[in-house]
Amino acid sequence: MSKRMSLSYSFPVFLIFVATATIACLDGLGVGKGLRFSGGSPFRIALFADLHYGENAWDDWGPKQDVKSDRVLSNVLDNETPDFVIYLGDVITANNLPIPNASMYWVQAISPTRIRGIPWATLFGNHDDAQFKWPLEWFSIAGIPEVRCPPESSFAGEKDCSFRGTTRIELMKMELLKNPLSHSQIGPTELWPAVSNYILQISSSKDPESPSVFLYFLDSGGGSYPEVISYAQIKWFQEQSQAINPNLQVPELIFWHIPSHAYKKVAPCRKSSIKSPCVGSINMEEVDSQEAEWGIMDALLNRSSVKAVFVGHNHGLDWCCPYEKLWLCFARHSGYGGYGTWPRGSRIIEMTEDPFSLNSWISMEDGTKHSYVKLSS
Amino acid sequence: MSKRMSLSYSFPVFLIFVATATIACLDGLGVGKGLRFSGGSPFRIALFADLHYGENAWDDWGPKQDVKSDRVLSNVLDNETPDFVIYLGDVITANNLPIPNASMYWVQAISPTRIRGIPWATLFGNHDDAQFKWPLEWFSIAGIPEVRCPPESSFAGEKDCSFRGTTRIELMKMELLKNPLSHSQIGPTELWPAVSNYILQISSSKDPESPSVFLYFLDSGGGSYPEVISYAQIKWFQEQSQAINPNLQVPELIFWHIPSHAYKKVAPCRKSSIKSPCVGSINMEEVDSQEAEWGIMDALLNRSSVKAVFVGHNHGLDWCCPYEKLWLCFARHSGYGGYGTWPRGSRIIEMTEDPFSLNSWISMEDGTKHSYVKLSS
Repeated sequence: MSKRMSLSYSFPVFLIFVATATIACLDGLGVGKGLRFSGGSPFRIALFADLHYGENAWDDWGPKQDVKSDRVLSNVLDNETPDFVIYLGDVITANNLPIPNASMYWVQAISPTRIRGIPWATLFGNHDDAQFKWPLEWFSIAGIPEVRCPPESSFAGEKDCSFRGTTRIELMKMELLKNPLSHSQIGPTELWPAVSNYILQISSSKDPESPSVFLYFLDSGGGSYPEVISYAQIKWFQEQSQAINPNLQVPELIFWHIPSHAYKKVAPCRKSSIKSPCVGSINMEEVDSQEAEWGIMDALLNRSSVKAVFVGHNHGLDWCCPYEKLWLCFARHSGYGGYGTWPRGSRIIEMTEDPFSLNSWISMEDGTKHSYVKLSS
Repeated sequence: MSKRMSLSYSFPVFLIFVATATIACLDGLGVGKGLRFSGGSPFRIALFADLHYGENAWDDWGPKQDVKSDRVLSNVLDNETPDFVIYLGDVITANNLPIPNASMYWVQAISPTRIRGIPWATLFGNHDDAQFKWPLEWFSIAGIPEVRCPPESSFAGEKDCSFRGTTRIELMKMELLKNPLSHSQIGPTELWPAVSNYILQISSSKDPESPSVFLYFLDSGGGSYPEVISYAQIKWFQEQSQAINPNLQVPELIFWHIPSHAYKKVAPCRKSSIKSPCVGSINMEEVDSQEAEWGIMDALLNRSSVKAVFVGHNHGLDWCCPYEKLWLCFARHSGYGGYGTWPRGSRIIEMTEDPFSLNSWISMEDGTKHSYVKLSS
């Protein structure tokens, strides 16, 4: 079917009403302002990508992987002592979760950060609100094991137990409910069904009102809807960035989950080593980019203040490559859930305030560090 | 991931509790007994396959197709005056329905039969409870049109409007609620998540307790779970058929939606004409069979009483071919929703009681009939 889209509707269409919840203090434009440089020290961020908690949740293998993921997070946090953590999507593997509320796995993923008192933000990947996918084997002679619907299964108005997934909004609401350290936001309703669209300011050490860096979070879709950054999100980005940083004086970093098509353009040849100007250590698969693109890369290139984009999604890639005036970087597969057996780690971002500099490296579970790259100076 | 399945669970798994609802009178084994031969007359069934009501529900094209489907149903019902109608799955295109309750389209599909006072039964296809699939175009500059969540959108305990699909059980409950002419059943809970598993008896004209034919309905999955007939369903079929027809004296017909692998074995060569012993008029695509098979065909072949299997799913196929001692038949694409532009029609099944005979043909929207085939005598 590729019929003309019409805006005239012959029946009512419905909207999830979204409470725009925020924990960190916001300015009038909705920019979160809880983060700040402290005089003289660099500001360090750890990216945790593709943790995939809850993978194969029904057998022994899955929970064991999650314990290993806990260890990755703990080691990186203890080795790098970051000022801030970004969960870069695919925090959970919802399509493996035959439960009405997947938040227990979300909680597990943020716990190592929370218990260390480190603030964090999350954004959504394509697995976070995916519908449960019944394993084909459950229909064989092995069968579906004896199952039951306990009283506590009622959740968010769902009276019966169903496997239709926990929505992005439900997940985010649960995260925000009891976590003052979370800087995540349920983004503007006009960007629905994309949810994790928001901006955080890292304030100057000299003046908490003065921005030194802006961090933009975008929901690149997937799961319950297509893998795409919508035209509405692009417009929102353009309007917001113009309003808060009209003179392009404040450096801007961008975070989402699924690589854009531009990543394909700059990618090192498949399975070859990663050569300069790219920097990284694994190049084991093709870039799996978004389903469509409606202009986000042009919007970024139009702003000289945008220094780099950071994505996850491809577990077998961890490089940064230049793309015109900015850098396109993969994070590093951090979780034991999800495909791939490459050693786990975390991309670290470190910024200085004055003069601004942006450097990055990968910090492994075993404490080793590699792939240092200067992204802006 | 192809890890060993384990039956030891480390967290609670949940079950939708299902009320086994029935409208037509049942015997102790749950066999529906409302249908009966009338002395001397054949018993005629019309199969409506792949109606796909609600396709592109958001634009003008979709509702117009549904009106055309109404016309197909009305014409066939008026031309053939069947004693019974079977809706052979993909009654609706749930993945095109951004509404919390898809039952309004289900109601539309059964209306032409209901208003003529003809009894019917339904079974599920792979589109009936599919999750809404967001059109990629909605994320382009055209955008998602202004949408709203009206108060009446609350349904089955869902307080917010969501696009996560209407479940098989919800659809079936809604059908049964106000339709005494429906012979559908919500099948045994132990076959969950398959729902449309049940047996109807066509009773003898001489004795309403005595069976002349058994009709078996099986849910071949798809949508919210894999396209498969489970081992549990096979076991249920074996036990039920053995209990109600131990001596194989009563002829048995089988209905489900997605063709089994055996259909591939007997299929005429792609795009060639349909040659004897097969009978049919369109052979325009490959058989799109179930994802796995755990033995249903062996179970059917073990019973000499099983005369034929009827499926839908492939809109470009309408043939019957022999497979060992039974016949494998496609119905005919009946709806204007769904892919394909081949003229719409309905497979008709006609049985005589004594002696038993089973014939079939295809009855088109325009009143023409073709592809007569004797399936048993």
